[in-house]
Amino acid sequence: MRSNFRPLLVLTLLLAVAGVAAAPASAGAACDVGLPDAASTCKTGLRGAWEELFPSIGRIQYEGPDSDTPLAFHYYNAEEVVHGKPMREWLRFSMAYWHTIRADGSDPFGAATKRWPWEQHPAGDDVELAFRRMRAFFELLDKLGVDFWCFHDRDIAPELPTLADTNAALDQVVALAKELQAASGKRVLWGTAQLFKHPRYMHGAATSPNATVFAHAAAQVKKAMEATKELGGENFVFWGGREGYQTLLNTDLALEQHNLARFLRMAADYKRKLGLPGPLLLEPKPQEPAKHQYDFDVSTTAAFLLRHGLDKDFKLNIECNHATLAGHSCYHELETAAMLGLLGSIDANSGDPQTGWDTDQFPTDIRETTLMMLTVLRQGGLAPGGLNFDAKLRRESTAIEDLVLAHISGMDAMARGLRNAARLLEDGVLERMRAQRYSSWRDTQLGRDITAGKVGLEDLERVALAQPEPFDSLPSGQQELYEIQLSRYVR
Amino acid sequence: MRSNFRPLLVLTLLLAVAGVAAAPASAGAACDVGLPDAASTCKTGLRGAWEELFPSIGRIQYEGPDSDTPLAFHYYNAEEVVHGKPMREWLRFSMAYWHTIRADGSDPFGAATKRWPWEQHPAGDDVELAFRRMRAFFELLDKLGVDFWCFHDRDIAPELPTLADTNAALDQVVALAKELQAASGKRVLWGTAQLFKHPRYMHGAATSPNATVFAHAAAQVKKAMEATKELGGENFVFWGGREGYQTLLNTDLALEQHNLARFLRMAADYKRKLGLPGPLLLEPKPQEPAKHQYDFDVSTTAAFLLRHGLDKDFKLNIECNHATLAGHSCYHELETAAMLGLLGSIDANSGDPQTGWDTDQFPTDIRETTLMMLTVLRQGGLAPGGLNFDAKLRRESTAIEDLVLAHISGMDAMARGLRNAARLLEDGVLERMRAQRYSSWRDTQLGRDITAGKVGLEDLERVALAQPEPFDSLPSGQQELYEIQLSRYVR
Amino acid sequence: MRSNFRPLLVLTLLLAVAGVAAAPASAGAACDVGLPDAASTCKTGLRGAWEELFPSIGRIQYEGPDSDTPLAFHYYNAEEVVHGKPMREWLRFSMAYWHTIRADGSDPFGAATKRWPWEQHPAGDDVELAFRRMRAFFELLDKLGVDFWCFHDRDIAPELPTLADTNAALDQVVALAKELQAASGKRVLWGTAQLFKHPRYMHGAATSPNATVFAHAAAQVKKAMEATKELGGENFVFWGGREGYQTLLNTDLALEQHNLARFLRMAADYKRKLGLPGPLLLEPKPQEPAKHQYDFDVSTTAAFLLRHGLDKDFKLNIECNHATLAGHSCYHELETAAMLGLLGSIDANSGDPQTGWDTDQFPTDIRETTLMMLTVLRQGGLAPGGLNFDAKLRRESTAIEDLVLAHISGMDAMARGLRNAARLLEDGVLERMRAQRYSSWRDTQLGRDITAGKVGLEDLERVALAQPEPFDSLPSGQQELYEIQLSRYVR
Amino acid sequence: MRSNFRPLLVLTLLLAVAGVAAAPASAGAACDVGLPDAASTCKTGLRGAWEELFPSIGRIQYEGPDSDTPLAFHYYNAEEVVHGKPMREWLRFSMAYWHTIRADGSDPFGAATKRWPWEQHPAGDDVELAFRRMRAFFELLDKLGVDFWCFHDRDIAPELPTLADTNAALDQVVALAKELQAASGKRVLWGTAQLFKHPRYMHGAATSPNATVFAHAAAQVKKAMEATKELGGENFVFWGGREGYQTLLNTDLALEQHNLARFLRMAADYKRKLGLPGPLLLEPKPQEPAKHQYDFDVSTTAAFLLRHGLDKDFKLNIECNHATLAGHSCYHELETAAMLGLLGSIDANSGDPQTGWDTDQFPTDIRETTLMMLTVLRQGGLAPGGLNFDAKLRRESTAIEDLVLAHISGMDAMARGLRNAARLLEDGVLERMRAQRYSSWRDTQLGRDITAGKVGLEDLERVALAQPEPFDSLPSGQQELYEIQLSRYVR
Repeated sequence: MRSNFRPLLVLTLLLAVAGVAAAPASAGAACDVGLPDAASTCKTGLRGAWEELFPSIGRIQYEGPDSDTPLAFHYYNAEEVVHGKPMREWLRFSMAYWHTIRADGSDPFGAATKRWPWEQHPAGDDVELAFRRMRAFFELLDKLGVDFWCFHDRDIAPELPTLADTNAALDQVVALAKELQAASGKRVLWGTAQLFKHPRYMHGAATSPNATVFAHAAAQVKKAMEATKELGGENFVFWGGREGYQTLLNTDLALEQHNLARFLRMAADYKRKLGLPGPLLLEPKPQEPAKHQYDFDVSTTAAFLLRHGLDKDFKLNIECNHATLAGHSCYHELETAAMLGLLGSIDANSGDPQTGWDTDQFPTDIRETTLMMLTVLRQGGLAPGGLNFDAKLRRESTAIEDLVLAHISGMDAMARGLRNAARLLEDGVLERMRAQRYSSWRDTQLGRDITAGKVGLEDLERVALAQPEPFDSLPSGQQELYEIQLSRYVR
Repeated sequence: MRSNFRPLLVLTLLLAVAGVAAAPASAGAACDVGLPDAASTCKTGLRGAWEELFPSIGRIQYEGPDSDTPLAFHYYNAEEVVHGKPMREWLRFSMAYWHTIRADGSDPFGAATKRWPWEQHPAGDDVELAFRRMRAFFELLDKLGVDFWCFHDRDIAPELPTLADTNAALDQVVALAKELQAASGKRVLWGTAQLFKHPRYMHGAATSPNATVFAHAAAQVKKAMEATKELGGENFVFWGGREGYQTLLNTDLALEQHNLARFLRMAADYKRKLGLPGPLLLEPKPQEPAKHQYDFDVSTTAAFLLRHGLDKDFKLNIECNHATLAGHSCYHELETAAMLGLLGSIDANSGDPQTGWDTDQFPTDIRETTLMMLTVLRQGGLAPGGLNFDAKLRRESTAIEDLVLAHISGMDAMARGLRNAARLLEDGVLERMRAQRYSSWRDTQLGRDITAGKVGLEDLERVALAQPEPFDSLPSGQQELYEIQLSRYVR
Repeated sequence: MRSNFRPLLVLTLLLAVAGVAAAPASAGAACDVGLPDAASTCKTGLRGAWEELFPSIGRIQYEGPDSDTPLAFHYYNAEEVVHGKPMREWLRFSMAYWHTIRADGSDPFGAATKRWPWEQHPAGDDVELAFRRMRAFFELLDKLGVDFWCFHDRDIAPELPTLADTNAALDQVVALAKELQAASGKRVLWGTAQLFKHPRYMHGAATSPNATVFAHAAAQVKKAMEATKELGGENFVFWGGREGYQTLLNTDLALEQHNLARFLRMAADYKRKLGLPGPLLLEPKPQEPAKHQYDFDVSTTAAFLLRHGLDKDFKLNIECNHATLAGHSCYHELETAAMLGLLGSIDANSGDPQTGWDTDQFPTDIRETTLMMLTVLRQGGLAPGGLNFDAKLRRESTAIEDLVLAHISGMDAMARGLRNAARLLEDGVLERMRAQRYSSWRDTQLGRDITAGKVGLEDLERVALAQPEPFDSLPSGQQELYEIQLSRYVR
Repeated sequence: MRSNFRPLLVLTLLLAVAGVAAAPASAGAACDVGLPDAASTCKTGLRGAWEELFPSIGRIQYEGPDSDTPLAFHYYNAEEVVHGKPMREWLRFSMAYWHTIRADGSDPFGAATKRWPWEQHPAGDDVELAFRRMRAFFELLDKLGVDFWCFHDRDIAPELPTLADTNAALDQVVALAKELQAASGKRVLWGTAQLFKHPRYMHGAATSPNATVFAHAAAQVKKAMEATKELGGENFVFWGGREGYQTLLNTDLALEQHNLARFLRMAADYKRKLGLPGPLLLEPKPQEPAKHQYDFDVSTTAAFLLRHGLDKDFKLNIECNHATLAGHSCYHELETAAMLGLLGSIDANSGDPQTGWDTDQFPTDIRETTLMMLTVLRQGGLAPGGLNFDAKLRRESTAIEDLVLAHISGMDAMARGLRNAARLLEDGVLERMRAQRYSSWRDTQLGRDITAGKVGLEDLERVALAQPEPFDSLPSGQQELYEIQLSRYVR
């Protein structure tokens, strides 16, 4: 495959980068300050007028794997039917409000690097800025053809000095988002309450040693659930960023975990009362920011749900980068959750194999996305869950094009994975090999007796004393052949 | 503290080393071949005559922290009462047969390095060699004043071509061990079936894809439980060294885990029938030899027990080095197990912070042993469990003195931990600080209402809207002060 | 050891916390706004009047290990002579300006938690605020009896819109610091230029793909060296927080590393011209914020220095938490640096064994500090380097007392280590055992011939063919005995 | 891509597995015992007669990516010209004798699982068995079309009670290998001395505290170099499996590292005297079996070579799984070695991302192999080095077919990587983007002045004071776009 598009591309992008960096302050200014403006990019009608923020970027189209255009899909073709459903329905892509709109490139060692046009706002009115951000977000959703979005309450609207004021601000922003949804057909995949940023939650929210903090967190979750319902959200997520400990020395493990269960039980009760349709989802993560987080991984969280009788009300939202931080492959966590009937939704991202913290990178490893989609296809899809890109630009990626390219990279990677997994399942190669491997449980009397619970140690001792050495007829595990078969489908 | 014993010590030990290395083959030869021997070290009466194997080593005595003798206890004083009980009763030390007697110093890159005197045996009779090993083991138990021991069936007796022969050999060795126990007062802390070494278990034992392997494993467990009962064992342990997977591609997760549950249920049924007194214990480990083991950590194993209704029959045996491989501190795993009512017994060892595999070193970090004993004291002791040294000499430590010194180092480290933890608890400093930290759950109406389940999100929202910002009166977490307080007790 | 001080302590501290949290804004206000104030805590003379910011905290005194006062030294007794020198001279403690004064408790998931009194400032004048911070810092230095301090240029003074303005502001703050030094006798251990926070350095400073960024970094280093000289700084440090890569795909490894060498060469040239007395120090760290940092560990950095002919001008500043992130023990990195003649100074901190990022905790593990001080004592001290506490309060520790307690914990931990290491060296036990272990290199002709370079493979083959199997007389490695000996000194 | 080959395949392989397991003992027996045998698989002429050991496996052919035959190459087409050379010349595949022939499936927790036909030998003559193994190996080399092989002295021939006898046995096996090479055209990529298995090396070989062990190791290296020369080996490798420490407490770091340098210098001297053509190669690994190994990674090893003046005589053999254990990507280590001019050869394998030890798996990740081959192509090839599969079957893979399939999987993975890397380089997309990114160093006077060494800090300060803020025109790092571009080539 020879091509000659790249020199041009590089030039274009570098020019674009320079342009964005050079003139961000003026972008969108005309509409915001109400000046007459003949530009066709100025829109009105939804809580005021606003300008299209990235006119240089059009709607991203599917052009196929041989296209040389970077700002196009090479694998994701929304309406194409794969394995019996349009790709869009299998993949249910969602954009994360926090990473896309609010991440400013700061890290523990450095200041913000992004100068996004939506932040270049003449007035300091927080709700106005929140509107501006929300419009920018919907412009991106539209241009990328992403159907769903996810949000934290405190990212879409400002936290003000009192809870009442904060709630009122949230209502205003939710009203705008509802209008934008109606106009665009976009939907909320899930909402969540941000219970980790404000310093009141520094010792925990539902697991705070302080009862008034617990009450505050409860109030915040109630309101966030209402906002999610108002926006037709299909799920509601809990990621317990501060539900854990920094040192066991000052921690009452039992009380904290019981309080967490009480908190979640109240949320489940209110969900029913409110009539919020979708499931509640816990999101496992082993650590960071806490030294230890209670929802360490799928198994730990499942144990917690079972122990506290919460397993009927909660499923899980699995994040790939969290899986790897816990010492598991993403595929392991997905398969484990699916086996337990707990796989609700996926945060599709990936980490860096050499770093010990959450890097929230877009998924680009096609072997990994193939395995992810294998689990999804096997369980017949994720709905009402979906694939949320809980992923952010690298700090050094500062152009708007990067934001679009990053989502394209993730969408194409998941789409390649979907195509690969569908072919694998349709050809049935791994499934047949595995069925053969376990055939003695199905095809022998001994196997059926054991699985039916008909025999005990004494019966089995009689069998064992009578049988020849089992190793002499034990087949190979054939891991290398399984890997070859998978590899042939990873394209 | 000035002292002048060391030059002497070093010399003595080096000479001893050289002696052991130079003349091991003759050690014990006289009794074994039945020659007349005037030495007082030749003993008779228990299945033949045998010689004391390490006459140069006497019974290890407590000499206190200021003693300069390495072959003495500096902290462990068995009968001294600490926190209301003799140290021996709190600590319930156990020696591991496999590491002490059977470890030969081989590793994945190298051949055996040990030339233990008990292995220098003129005849090739396996059961005779097994007897010789068992006698050596009891000599060490006696000289070190360790009250308990643990064993795998296949380490104390040989695996022969048929299961019937293997069982018969096991019976013979168990009979000798019973006599040695009667003569010495030593007891079995726990027994276990070794289901990981023989190649028939390469794909798993209870989780094998092959039903006949499952049957063989069941027969082996039955016999090992009987041997444990015969020896008055107080617990029975399952470490699933091959219960996991090497690749998810060839694995049926659900079937394997259900089979594992079936297997354990049969064992629980047979335990009751057999009248084996103590609890059954699962031993979590995240990986190694398998890439992923099903009993990953305490929480994962607890989830498995709950899910399969096995939580009444099983507790856990926590190994510190397994905890750290799973990304937890040993203290975390112990506290978590204790909170769940699952802390049955402890494999007291430690790993190397820079290596990613189980190094099974003796515990020597006093801060760590203090925290371990804090959990043990808080739950009122471990009985019928205990502290088993699942720890081995380094490959390069090839003298018999090393074996004794290593156990002394572990016993003294646990004893220092016990003394420290007892003072900490008696002074009550950490407990009082922690009680104060959580006082709002006990001392305020709001806290009591929440923990009593009297309120829901709507009630709490009313509270939150009415209250001032909780952060303004939120106390410090004081981690540094907790660490100072702990540090003052770590001596 | 029974005591009854703790309930009181806890109460006092909690009250203090509440007090600090409740009324920080007024602290120090009187002096700052120039109002007449009779309080004895208002000081004048150095660039205006100011108030003592923490009048509740007095000068920390040595009270010995049995004291029950937390706000006292239990082990660090500055003037006590240990191993021939006062403790203060061995330890050369230094406080880090950034962590102590500028860390606000924010982390990647949460907002600031600290409400330090020095930040409660009515005016927005940056240099005035910088003065206020510097005075607070010197008050802490004085109350803790710490002799040295370390700083980044951009932490002590604000970064203003132009480099010229920024330099001028730095000059003003340096002038104040110089006056405060003169009044207190405190000294700069090292200064450094902060080349990682400003977004201009996002792709690197000396390793930026952009030459103008390199120039800016060079200018900043020049000025920071001048500030360090002005303050009598004894060393100058380079930690390359952005000198590395996020992805190799966009990186020219060779050019970046050559540029880094050019940059350091310029700095060495200017150091000589300026007459800055002490050595230049590189500070290894493997990753974070970059995915890979060029100064990965001691060996990598030594290779870089050798390759570029910089080994005469640079030594290393070793940070313990960086060592562990690189897969080494702190002791390994210290011993390796000492062996190479590169051990210049130490950032005395520690990490969390279960987290994969730099936690910059105060050192509290006495085994670790004993080993650290063993290296320091063996090389006769660190001067002109020292022990800088590159360590910060936990985010949840929000009381001024915590800041003081944290430093006490670190200083006492290092002092315990010093006392232990001194006894170990004076008794000589480990040194004698090790000398014996290697005696064949000193005491046999073969050993002397090899180390003298007199023999080759052919000579040695003749020896080997003639000698008996060396394993038969190979002594034990005795790791357990070495660990026992160390453990006896860790108190 | 629909296909129907798999059910058949699975059946065939399972049958084959059963066959191998059922009747291994008879395979090859006829020739070995010298009985008349009409079978065409019995060969004679080279030190006796022998039978083809795996007659069911033919020579593996290239069938292209769409073939459904597992026992065929789908990507590796030896004579096909890619990027100007036949694939065979770029890839220079080598088979590792130890993993292929000598690995028996034992691990630290389990016994051998393999029952290879070449081990089923009626007589106990070690050299005869060694012959049988060597013939089996050449049969595999031939059937897989692998041109090179690598060996440890002690794997191809037995270690006997005296060094003289051991050397004599080695001579015999080398003579056979030479005949087999002459008949087949196969060549030695590299030889090496195994200095880690025998217990005499438990404390180190060149770094032993014992001078006679050093001498023995030297003799062994001399002989292994001679054997390598006799077989026309193109390189000679040192992997220091015991050159490191288990505890720093008993270690004299400086003496051990100087002795290692002395040892390598003797080897370099003897290489010249012997006329061994290729370079000497060190193989970095961070740990395992030692807690710390001196050749930790590329940079550490480069530092060692430079410090001891060995950088002219030694290059590196990079193993991918060793790279990841050291906290680096394989690509990082390859690029670093290439930058330093030290990339001599590659051990092409991969590890498991969730395990902390060397798993030595065959490479199957195409993204990784693409990056590996990118480095190889950029430096114009590896010769006289090559790609050695230092990789082994999983313990549970017990069929001969697995051994063949595993090598096919690795060869195809590297071939896919080669094809991808060639297209990437030919299209030039990453190279052009990167050149543009660094253009200021080439295209501006400032950049040229800096790299030419014409300016110092004072000059650059003048530049910085005059220039506008560099961040305002700093381009994006575009990591996501680089990743998209790479991803498009990974097929």
